[in-house]
Amino acid sequence: MKIDAYSHILPAPYFERMRELAVDPGALKRWLELPALHDVDARLRMMDEFGDGYQQILTLSSPPIELLAGPAESAALARLANESMLELCEKHPDRFPAFVASLPMNNPDAALAELAYAIDDLGARGVQVFTNVSGRPLDDPAFQGVFDEMARRDLPIWMHPARGAAFADYATEDASKYEIWWAFGWPYETSAAMARLVFSGLFERHPDIKIITHHMGAMIPYLEGRIGLGWSDQLGSRTAGEDYRNLLPRRPLDYFRRFYADTALSGSAIGTRCGLDFFGADHVLFGTDCPFDPEGGPMYIRETIRVIDDLDVTDAVREQIYHGNLRRLMNART
Amino acid sequence: MKIDAYSHILPAPYFERMRELAVDPGALKRWLELPALHDVDARLRMMDEFGDGYQQILTLSSPPIELLAGPAESAALARLANESMLELCEKHPDRFPAFVASLPMNNPDAALAELAYAIDDLGARGVQVFTNVSGRPLDDPAFQGVFDEMARRDLPIWMHPARGAAFADYATEDASKYEIWWAFGWPYETSAAMARLVFSGLFERHPDIKIITHHMGAMIPYLEGRIGLGWSDQLGSRTAGEDYRNLLPRRPLDYFRRFYADTALSGSAIGTRCGLDFFGADHVLFGTDCPFDPEGGPMYIRETIRVIDDLDVTDAVREQIYHGNLRRLMNART
Repeated sequence: MKIDAYSHILPAPYFERMRELAVDPGALKRWLELPALHDVDARLRMMDEFGDGYQQILTLSSPPIELLAGPAESAALARLANESMLELCEKHPDRFPAFVASLPMNNPDAALAELAYAIDDLGARGVQVFTNVSGRPLDDPAFQGVFDEMARRDLPIWMHPARGAAFADYATEDASKYEIWWAFGWPYETSAAMARLVFSGLFERHPDIKIITHHMGAMIPYLEGRIGLGWSDQLGSRTAGEDYRNLLPRRPLDYFRRFYADTALSGSAIGTRCGLDFFGADHVLFGTDCPFDPEGGPMYIRETIRVIDDLDVTDAVREQIYHGNLRRLMNART
Repeated sequence: MKIDAYSHILPAPYFERMRELAVDPGALKRWLELPALHDVDARLRMMDEFGDGYQQILTLSSPPIELLAGPAESAALARLANESMLELCEKHPDRFPAFVASLPMNNPDAALAELAYAIDDLGARGVQVFTNVSGRPLDDPAFQGVFDEMARRDLPIWMHPARGAAFADYATEDASKYEIWWAFGWPYETSAAMARLVFSGLFERHPDIKIITHHMGAMIPYLEGRIGLGWSDQLGSRTAGEDYRNLLPRRPLDYFRRFYADTALSGSAIGTRCGLDFFGADHVLFGTDCPFDPEGGPMYIRETIRVIDDLDVTDAVREQIYHGNLRRLMNART
């Protein structure tokens, strides 16, 4: 059994609606080249390669809903996404055992309402947030309710990178050049979002909150030393006019290990080993980033399985990564 | 024998001049707390812990000279830095066997003149550049002469991160918060600079150019998969209106492996292993980031030595990392 904790989908009714809304032409070009992203028949055919034991938890693809609809319209768009994902789960339960709700984050009250409806009425097993909300960082008090509520419900938050608008602006010609915004801007955004959550005290308020970071925690595992001796143990030494010392009762690096991380590193064995060593076997989940690979779907799945199968770990740990950890996080009954 | 390829110094005459110039108060606060950075007697006492076999190649500390002096004054400031470093090498040859020249990069003609003078007359064994020049990326044609000349001379370029001004602006209040600009902005800048050099064809023009990236190649090793299957093999798929396919004759990921990288990961064994696996044993150099650690000098040296001593490699590889690779890059006679 292998449950893919982080793949991306645009259910057909939602995709049709998206195309009517203003979207980045580069993104639109990409989606159209990937049938497995928005055509469920293509998706299912692609999944056959991996046998009956391969399943996907559905999470909605980029961009964040708030980049497609203003605060008055985003709730309806999130509802359409969630109902469309549920429909896919109901039609194909052997492939899609559960979905993760999208939220209208640019309307915090509506986001809380959709969170409750999607989980209580539609059966979502978590929610997805992006690393900033139209440039506002996730530790903005406006979004605290979502984190509080997910901690209270003991269900995971999937965190996907998003290009920042004001938070860290890569929308300059220079960062767009060669798609650097995608290659490095997204890992930057994820790392910065993790830091904002840590330093704002999220894990003090909610020690057991479940946050699944995409792409194996972005920069964090590789920068273990920089975050530890470089930052945690010298916080504030580079800043005049503000005192960051004693911001948190524990060493900041320790909180970074509390995140969960998926294996979506595009088939890198050395990265996966590093991430697993950082987060530990009970915090790493099989996730692939399907279908955004050169073959439009199966390649990241195949390469990620190869990497996990080759890891020098016990079978019990491999089972944890492939499905045990995710089922535990989602409080799955079976 | 252990030669530290990347530590930082501000020789006293240069430091005095710096303090007269406008500098960031956060940086000034930090320098004053680190005697081993600007007081050579403190530096030498600190180095004693590591015995006679420990040496440092001198490279000037941040900030880039162009952030301290305009194009008319930067050449004199670089000259002061280079003459001051040479003086330290001449006084303490057993500790400082060589130095790396600083250049007035905001004045490209003066930079080329100082490069020639520092190497030919002062005996510098390489030059240092920062990852952007007041926000201009390193692949700007204005800087091509420096790369061409260092390739022609077959001597290394040390590359240090710098906060971008226009290239990628972290100077917002948000990115300054919690010192995120330092923790993640610098690795972002280094990674972006490496990408600009790769995609602009530097390694096609100069296949054997020697560029030493600080902090073990920033994000690159951990993102091996993202750069490979995610970016190299799908370049342009996320961009409308510009064609990035066939930009380079080889797979872009392959060029990233041509950089050299130091071990300055603040004592992270998992990161060092990952970086070594990415770059290979002949491209990794012992470097510590001394004296920017919690003890103000010895801690990064001690921790980095511990990590390298614990690496599961042959003694021959360990010797390469500790001094062999650097001596080869500098074309050292002995």
